[in-house]
Amino acid sequence: MTETAAARQSEMILSDQDRRGLYRAILGRRDVRGQFLPDAIADDVLARILVAAHYAPSVGFMQPWSFIIVRSPDQRARIKAAFDRANTEAALMFDGERAEKYRALKLEGILDAPINLCITCDRDRAGPVVLGRTHMPEMDLYSTVCAVENLWLAARAEGLGVGWVSIIQPEALRAILGLPEQVVPVAYLCLGKVSHFLAQPELQNSGWRQRLPLQDLVAFDAWQGAASTEDDALLAALRHAQDKAAMGEI
Amino acid sequence: MTETAAARQSEMILSDQDRRGLYRAILGRRDVRGQFLPDAIADDVLARILVAAHYAPSVGFMQPWSFIIVRSPDQRARIKAAFDRANTEAALMFDGERAEKYRALKLEGILDAPINLCITCDRDRAGPVVLGRTHMPEMDLYSTVCAVENLWLAARAEGLGVGWVSIIQPEALRAILGLPEQVVPVAYLCLGKVSHFLAQPELQNSGWRQRLPLQDLVAFDAWQGAASTEDDALLAALRHAQDKAAMGEI
Repeated sequence: MTETAAARQSEMILSDQDRRGLYRAILGRRDVRGQFLPDAIADDVLARILVAAHYAPSVGFMQPWSFIIVRSPDQRARIKAAFDRANTEAALMFDGERAEKYRALKLEGILDAPINLCITCDRDRAGPVVLGRTHMPEMDLYSTVCAVENLWLAARAEGLGVGWVSIIQPEALRAILGLPEQVVPVAYLCLGKVSHFLAQPELQNSGWRQRLPLQDLVAFDAWQGAASTEDDALLAALRHAQDKAAMGEI
Repeated sequence: MTETAAARQSEMILSDQDRRGLYRAILGRRDVRGQFLPDAIADDVLARILVAAHYAPSVGFMQPWSFIIVRSPDQRARIKAAFDRANTEAALMFDGERAEKYRALKLEGILDAPINLCITCDRDRAGPVVLGRTHMPEMDLYSTVCAVENLWLAARAEGLGVGWVSIIQPEALRAILGLPEQVVPVAYLCLGKVSHFLAQPELQNSGWRQRLPLQDLVAFDAWQGAASTEDDALLAALRHAQDKAAMGEI
């Protein structure tokens, strides 16, 4: 083991500053749709965020992900058309005022962002039997989502916005990108510098939906397991941490 | 907007120190199975990592996750028995030397860690039609996985190990935890202080599987889209960032 590795291993808790950095990325991360700038992304920055994705956890150390960097205007125009078709269908699923609100939202930055990135999952990457996937076959897809989240946080730290485009037929993505049968398009992302990051999620700002109180989402020992008096301190700590998070720190 | 929020908004790129903290958490995160200590986790630490999970991205701002904190020895014994059943089945799926290696691996810390945590996805949390889930119904499950990854990174920064137990029948988890029909058990985690973090993933150390070269996982504009000469600088940056990551920095 190198000295660096040994030093790292003994560093059990990250320093206050390092922890603050992680929490800032988590609290400041946004799903960006409307604030992209066309500026190019530096190669070293793009490389770092891809490495962050590659260091995600993966079931059986399978590393099932691939990264398709989409820059061609023709390819992006095809993706945009597929989004438009799906989005028109989606708008019809909402009623009245909600449908009106839906149509007013900008939900993608496919042509605005300088780079699109499709993160895929190759379900055959490590053969048919994968350690840890034997009883939960979706684990490789979940690993790929962990890579998406790592990349998203690293992008935020590097000042890049990411928007996840999920209003699209997976079969359209498959056809446009030429994905083989065993490869699942998990996330289609728009990626680029931004004019600014919103202080709150856009759907919160627009009144679409509010942040839920975390203490309502916590149970003990079972789905309906209520807190006992010995959990009072934890529930108080939850409310305190949540109040601080709403101010951008934790 | 408060002054704090305005200051935050203008902070486009996090400071070098903050970025370093995020990358340290990402590179130092491990799937912990064998290094758990029985020590209690402080309430404020547990609260912070749950808030980190709650600030994950979610489709349509749905926040479909719930957190079941499992501490009862009886419940954990039931979960451990369900793991043992599944693990015995799993071992039979590997052949020869691989099966032997599989049986030698410690794959969970259910009874060793002071806390287990089941993170679930309530598919009905925001009604039947969810913005962004209309064409990819799995998006709420993926949102929940983002919460798992946020929590995992925050735990690493706080000096806590996390191990994801996926070798278990989801139906067993459902029965033991009393989950209603619409609630999916996405991740069953073991959580606690650790004696040390391994310098490399355990499956890499044991020779089960090696880390893949990232440049082999990157394509351009389509699945088989090769790099052009203008991509040389990016590929060089990828190799450089990957070499640094292997040393624990980026």
